[in-house]
Amino acid sequence: MKTSGGSDAAKRRAGESAAETVDDGEVVGLGTGSTAAHAIRRLGDRVDAGLDVRGVATSFASRELAVDCGIPLIDLDEAVGLDAPGIDRAIDGADQIAVGRGDEPAVGPLIKGGGAAHAREKLVDAAADRFHVVADPSKEAAVLDRSVPIAVLPDGRSAVADAVRAAGGEPTLRLAERKDGPVVTDDGQLVLDCAFGEIDAPERLAATLSATPGVVEHGLFVGLADAVHVGTETEVRVARR
Amino acid sequence: MKTSGGSDAAKRRAGESAAETVDDGEVVGLGTGSTAAHAIRRLGDRVDAGLDVRGVATSFASRELAVDCGIPLIDLDEAVGLDAPGIDRAIDGADQIAVGRGDEPAVGPLIKGGGAAHAREKLVDAAADRFHVVADPSKEAAVLDRSVPIAVLPDGRSAVADAVRAAGGEPTLRLAERKDGPVVTDDGQLVLDCAFGEIDAPERLAATLSATPGVVEHGLFVGLADAVHVGTETEVRVARR
Repeated sequence: MKTSGGSDAAKRRAGESAAETVDDGEVVGLGTGSTAAHAIRRLGDRVDAGLDVRGVATSFASRELAVDCGIPLIDLDEAVGLDAPGIDRAIDGADQIAVGRGDEPAVGPLIKGGGAAHAREKLVDAAADRFHVVADPSKEAAVLDRSVPIAVLPDGRSAVADAVRAAGGEPTLRLAERKDGPVVTDDGQLVLDCAFGEIDAPERLAATLSATPGVVEHGLFVGLADAVHVGTETEVRVARR
Repeated sequence: MKTSGGSDAAKRRAGESAAETVDDGEVVGLGTGSTAAHAIRRLGDRVDAGLDVRGVATSFASRELAVDCGIPLIDLDEAVGLDAPGIDRAIDGADQIAVGRGDEPAVGPLIKGGGAAHAREKLVDAAADRFHVVADPSKEAAVLDRSVPIAVLPDGRSAVADAVRAAGGEPTLRLAERKDGPVVTDDGQLVLDCAFGEIDAPERLAATLSATPGVVEHGLFVGLADAVHVGTETEVRVARR
């Protein structure tokens, strides 16, 4: 589970706000992490009340929770492809959201991957017609500056680390708890957490990382979000692109 | 093993020509496929004669052959990274080489992945100071037009197929022989063979494919090769960048 500075009440407001946007008959991508979990639970309540939706899980954890909540699931490759229904909407959290320096929150690029699920999350979030990000204010930043998680082929970890250093970053192999050695993702990859300082050109960095041999997926989500729901202690702010 | 139209004699001349460039003390990336196998065997002969090299395998198959040939091996993550020796040279085959329309063969972009080893091959070939391509004339083309193999996360195959179609390609899931269902790579990925017709802008297509969620690695190798050794029935032509 992702660690986070936000309160549970704020996260719940954000998650439930996004879950309320879902319409009858939709296929919905179900994100990973503590804020997305509130959206899944609210969606489960709506299914109990008669809403007809099918979910597409982004991780082992979101699949388990969706099953607990009674949300019917389909596999990603049933949802997309030729003659498939497509994904109408995805609801997912973020570790950091660039909101710019203005008064109104923007729908900027994201950093994801604290839960090491960002490869499947990006598949689902990018395939969706509309991607709703759910977060609390602790995730907002004028400029992205958190470490970027990069899922790498196990054999490629040193070569990717070299490339990250060449791009101005400092890579750290994410170590596991409750097992010896590194974190291994649901897909069998390792994770390098890469500190770049303030990321002034996220699109350019994303392209560099994508083109690096051994990178399976990086945690920069640029140009994917359509709406951001930020819960606070008292309300929800929603920004749309 | 890769299928190919070239003669074994031509392949052997190419592989042996590249193996002769290796200097004492080097770390050498060992490619996959029938032409690279000739380089590995020749390198094994040179090790028997006293050459001091260490190999880095690009696949299960090249590792097995190198062991048979008595070439000492190190892992990729021992070869690269901080305080590591680096890879001095890689020798690897190609499924197609763009040589341009002039009289002299150019060192153009490549298509690799017929052996489904292109993710590890690209890691090793890109990390090497010098990358020698070995081939026979059947691999040369003015413009790349073979199918591009793309290694994909198993869950992402339909989403990647959609993205390939959007980029003007026709994806086909590579099916296995001697097992039911799809080919699974040494890294656990599936392979989509994607026909794009003539690829006029390989660098742009490579960037598009790299940025597609679910793509682990594609078979376009752009700007990586430093030399091409093309064996014929009578000689070897060598082009350098």
